[in-house]
Amino acid sequence: MAETPRILAFDIFGTVVDWHGSIVREVSARWPQVDADAFALAWRAGYQPAMEGVRSGGRGFVKLDVLHREILDGLLPRFGLAHLDEAGRADLNRVWHRLDPWADCVAGLQRLKARFTLCTLSNGNIGLLTDMARHAGLPWDCVLSAEVFRAYKPDPRVYLGVADVFDRAPAEVMMVAAHQDDLAAARACGLQTAYIERPLEFGAAHPKDVSPVAANTWHARDLLQLADWLGC
Amino acid sequence: MAETPRILAFDIFGTVVDWHGSIVREVSARWPQVDADAFALAWRAGYQPAMEGVRSGGRGFVKLDVLHREILDGLLPRFGLAHLDEAGRADLNRVWHRLDPWADCVAGLQRLKARFTLCTLSNGNIGLLTDMARHAGLPWDCVLSAEVFRAYKPDPRVYLGVADVFDRAPAEVMMVAAHQDDLAAARACGLQTAYIERPLEFGAAHPKDVSPVAANTWHARDLLQLADWLGC
Repeated sequence: MAETPRILAFDIFGTVVDWHGSIVREVSARWPQVDADAFALAWRAGYQPAMEGVRSGGRGFVKLDVLHREILDGLLPRFGLAHLDEAGRADLNRVWHRLDPWADCVAGLQRLKARFTLCTLSNGNIGLLTDMARHAGLPWDCVLSAEVFRAYKPDPRVYLGVADVFDRAPAEVMMVAAHQDDLAAARACGLQTAYIERPLEFGAAHPKDVSPVAANTWHARDLLQLADWLGC
Repeated sequence: MAETPRILAFDIFGTVVDWHGSIVREVSARWPQVDADAFALAWRAGYQPAMEGVRSGGRGFVKLDVLHREILDGLLPRFGLAHLDEAGRADLNRVWHRLDPWADCVAGLQRLKARFTLCTLSNGNIGLLTDMARHAGLPWDCVLSAEVFRAYKPDPRVYLGVADVFDRAPAEVMMVAAHQDDLAAARACGLQTAYIERPLEFGAAHPKDVSPVAANTWHARDLLQLADWLGC
């Protein structure tokens, strides 16, 4: 049995909040003629390439809000929305600040918080994560972000940064995420890992493989089951 | 009447928590023979000189936990505690992580949180502030610290950093503190300011001048009165 962690560090997009469903709901409500599913997927598909520009050193660190906006500006013409004005674009870009949580998250985090220090560990910027916590009622003890470490996951500085912030050994920190690549990078830095199944992260039309990977410390259906596993 | 702020940024030591009383209680309980009032004052007196080493560029950024420990190590012989071992020193140094709040703070912050985004803006490091929030039940939306900006107040990067984190104009941020120098530095960066009276910050034997300064946006007896002033 692994040592009990002291700090749980959560990935956010897809793990705690349903970015696909939230964006589909907003886009459908505003523009019924737009293929909201394709719109959400295209916006998210721009995410890794945009961060790669920072990771490669090609540009200095910029907040995810800025990257989301650049991707959005490139996307609008393809969906017949090139006419959207500055205020409309700024407001739509902030949909990432008001994503809805998966149904188990608020109750699951409240249970986990009784025993562990809970922080975000997301590529989302601090303001985005703080607005989201207020919107969704997520009871973080602390909002940590790529913005704090000036590097995007899977850069090791982000994972090791959490341990340093709390003056803990990496093994006393557990990364919680719905993405095996995030967990593999955390594990390479010595963190414990918990995989959370989110089969509908990309929408009901695009179910995701959620098979267990033996290298993870835990594999849980959702945060309520993780709380069970961790004795909360 | 000033524009309503969106973000309230709180100084912590002395403003939200009673460092003097908390340290006196711990030290008295452990070593009844020690002058705990003098001990607390001496520890805190080392604070500004220690940070000055970082502010002046004489050394790179180090966390306040490290500075607190250096001051403590220098202090122990003067109080007959040179024999304290490593574990004892590490534990005592963490008293700053478990300081008790002033009586009005939890209720005051809860009222303010309904309307404003609340963050810490302290020279304390992130881990210290997070542990303190869990200990004292302080409902921050976000823990910001000198550690995030790699600079100690009153460096302008700290005050302007908050506005940048939230993509707000400086005037949309209000600094809340029991220290006029902190507020003056925030005001010089364009922030609004609220002064909180904490006449007993240095203990009942050393009452502090809490006279109003006209340049502050608000002057409040405590956080409950600030909530009144701000319509919460």
